[in-house]
Formats: sequence, C-alpha cells, structure tokens
Amino acid sequence: MIKRVSLLTRRDGMSREQFTRHWLEIHAPLARPVPGLRRYVQSHILEEFRRPDIPTSPVQVDGIAELWFDDRASMERALASPEMAALHADGALFIGSNKTFVVDEKVIIG
Amino acid sequence: MIKRVSLLTRRDGMSREQFTRHWLEIHAPLARPVPGLRRYVQSHILEEFRRPDIPTSPVQVDGIAELWFDDRASMERALASPEMAALHADGALFIGSNKTFVVDEKVIIG
Repeated sequence: MIKRVSLLTRRDGMSREQFTRHWLEIHAPLARPVPGLRRYVQSHILEEFRRPDIPTSPVQVDGIAELWFDDRASMERALASPEMAALHADGALFIGSNKTFVVDEKVIIG
Repeated sequence: MIKRVSLLTRRDGMSREQFTRHWLEIHAPLARPVPGLRRYVQSHILEEFRRPDIPTSPVQVDGIAELWFDDRASMERALASPEMAALHADGALFIGSNKTFVVDEKVIIG
C-alpha cells in the first residue's frame, strides 16, 4: 500500500465551516468512483494544540486528506483517470492552497 | 475515537534520513508504554507532489504522526502521563518545529 497525504487550506473568503461542508458533502462523494482508491479518510480539524517546548510551524491547515492505493502503479492510474480529474476540478473550487506528499506508512501501534 | 495529527519538521542541521531514523528507531519504541494510546502511525515522506491547479503551501514537513485515543479524556490522561513526558522530551531532540491538531476522522472509503 502507498498513501498520499494532502494538507488543505480553504480558499480566501470561505469560513472553515463552509470549507468542511463542501469537502464532506460535495467532494467526498466524487471520490467514490475513483479507480483503485482503496481507502479515503478526511480529518476535520477540531482544534490546534501548541507544544510549549517546540516552535509551532507557521502554516494554516483546514483539513487533512489521506488516500491509499495498492501500489504506485495503481496510484498513477488513478491520477490519470477522468474520475480523479473531476475530483481535482471540484477541489479547486474550495481549496486555496495545498501540500501533498507520497508517504510510507509505518504502523507502530495498532 | 479521537486523533491527534502532528506535522513534524526536522531540527536544523539534521538530514531527513537522520530525522527519520531517530523517529523510527528511538522515538517510536518510547510511544509503546504511553497509557491509552490505541494506535500510532508514522508517515515517512517519500516525495512531494505538486498540483498545477492549486498553489502549494509554503511549509516544510519531514514526517506526519497520527495518534489515536478512545476519547478526549483518555487523550488528556495520556498527555499528563510520565510516559508522554518522556516521549516529548525525546521529540525535542530531533523535531525543529511542529504543528499539532486534534481532528475528527471521517472514513469516506475503506
């Protein structure tokens, strides 16, 4: 399995509530037909926690998306699909900026 | 369940490889005794993916940590434990900056 993680920031002029509602109610259903998408989790921000002992990174994040695929080839096929194109087109309507990583998951506990 | 997500940046002077090795080999074992920690996943960055249609957020991330607890009370007890204090003390040795959120997970697919 391979995972993509996207840190999402809402578009200027939107409230976090508007962003979260669009993401959950309009965007999420568009992900269901994407070929090869094995798992998709949205993390909705409830609050920020500041550690007193380490500087806080200056970044605004309104949501975190995780998408899992069987392997890199499946991920590339999904990215090239018309279903993903539709998902991305919708994303541009409510996501102001984005940072996306391909990551290797290490399950330490659980 | 409640989840904490931390976006981690390595300390100045460390390579990403040094950061990742410390995180996996020294830090991860210190998490095992933390009371109430139900699941702990480290996401090691393989590469960044830039979307052409949305601006890229200017933030450096070297790793993403996810920690799950049964509920907020369990999380608060874990945070107050000496085991978590030891985990945080180790974190200050290799984490240069950090952004931590408490989030509500919505499983869309999977």
